[in-house]
Amino acid sequence: MTISLIPVEGIGEVQPGDDLAGLIFAATRSPAGTAGRPPASTPNSGSVELAEGDVVVVTQKVVSKAEGRLVKVDPADPRSHKVHVEAEAVRIIRRRGDLIMTETRHGFVCANSGVDLSNVDSGWAALLPVDPDRSARRIRDGLVARSSKNVGVVISDTFGRAWRRGVTDVAIGCAGVAAVVDLRGTRDALGRELTVTEVCVADEIAGAAELVMGKSTGIPVAIVRGVNPSWFRDGSVRKEIVRPHQEDLFR
Amino acid sequence: MTISLIPVEGIGEVQPGDDLAGLIFAATRSPAGTAGRPPASTPNSGSVELAEGDVVVVTQKVVSKAEGRLVKVDPADPRSHKVHVEAEAVRIIRRRGDLIMTETRHGFVCANSGVDLSNVDSGWAALLPVDPDRSARRIRDGLVARSSKNVGVVISDTFGRAWRRGVTDVAIGCAGVAAVVDLRGTRDALGRELTVTEVCVADEIAGAAELVMGKSTGIPVAIVRGVNPSWFRDGSVRKEIVRPHQEDLFR
Repeated sequence: MTISLIPVEGIGEVQPGDDLAGLIFAATRSPAGTAGRPPASTPNSGSVELAEGDVVVVTQKVVSKAEGRLVKVDPADPRSHKVHVEAEAVRIIRRRGDLIMTETRHGFVCANSGVDLSNVDSGWAALLPVDPDRSARRIRDGLVARSSKNVGVVISDTFGRAWRRGVTDVAIGCAGVAAVVDLRGTRDALGRELTVTEVCVADEIAGAAELVMGKSTGIPVAIVRGVNPSWFRDGSVRKEIVRPHQEDLFR
Repeated sequence: MTISLIPVEGIGEVQPGDDLAGLIFAATRSPAGTAGRPPASTPNSGSVELAEGDVVVVTQKVVSKAEGRLVKVDPADPRSHKVHVEAEAVRIIRRRGDLIMTETRHGFVCANSGVDLSNVDSGWAALLPVDPDRSARRIRDGLVARSSKNVGVVISDTFGRAWRRGVTDVAIGCAGVAAVVDLRGTRDALGRELTVTEVCVADEIAGAAELVMGKSTGIPVAIVRGVNPSWFRDGSVRKEIVRPHQEDLFR
């Protein structure tokens, strides 16, 4: 089964209070994604129209904006950014120079508590959503109600990693789709029971979507079409991905 | 631009000494991927036939098998596995119970030095390729020569992560495609210079491919079609992704 990663263009600037599900649904029905082609009666692999079983990936930045999670910073004073980083942290994991690795109240370990200045108006910073799983549920409810399609939603953000250079997009919230798929008890192609068993499909979906969104192109939403139908269930990043302290070897 | 993730079926069991590029090329020309449809004159978004700008993702397991990186283990004696884990490690990072996090000679930090029993005949374990970037170059050379198409190759493996549950596929080698794309100096959608600048596209490509390969379905190769053409250049996981010790906060 082929999977398609489809950028959703035409969302435009998002403002505090905006109905994000409404904006996304409108963009999936605009001709922007199907320019020059006649409207398809059924969505094909390239159509931006929502289809049953789509996963809609939404970047944290527009979620935070819609939810009004914006704070003032003084662009001339780096300290004004740092105050918010520390306020959002429950723990400082590592410091080196300007970089602060923190644990957020969600349990995420990331740079600067996820407080981010890019793609935000000068003088402002965006904080992470208070409860990204809930943000995902709200968007999903709005999309399901409007489209009458069973879709999943993943909220993505850009995190660094230990030991590996470069950032990748990962899931910070999800709804209607599994975060981690447990293959325990299944067998590999040679009939041996699998030892690697829990696959974090939500992170793979978030990273895949980044490939069509880019960091600088201003496309905050993508559709991942064709994922395994068995992954559609109640999902939660907080419950499935965030590693409890007692399991964690690196905190 | 839409990206397609296309599983390549029909590779079959790989044996030591097999010409992996030849096997992959043959599978992309077999009717398995286009069953029931007439052969397309030009590859479309779902065709398994190699096209200019495709990235071919190959799982480590078949690369290790083709390169004969197999060692004997006694299935009744877990110690016989551990001997190889320690032989492949340059450093033990953490131990807890049966889990050993090691640093391999490549600089990867992963469980059990990447020594893996799944999808290998009972009594054997697969070691990581000696030089996965070189393995990728060899496969790429074979595919380019046969197809006359400029394609990239990523070798993927399944790693756990600090702080987050579940495993994801990441890149352990690449050729003909960037591992990390540096966006330094580019601007975000609002014209601000980007602070997050180095995106590990090779890891996002590897994780995306995993979504169509699965852990237990025995599909070791997938095509990622439609990635940004500017990413096609000499790439190296070792040089671009492996984080030098002096930069690393967690080793």
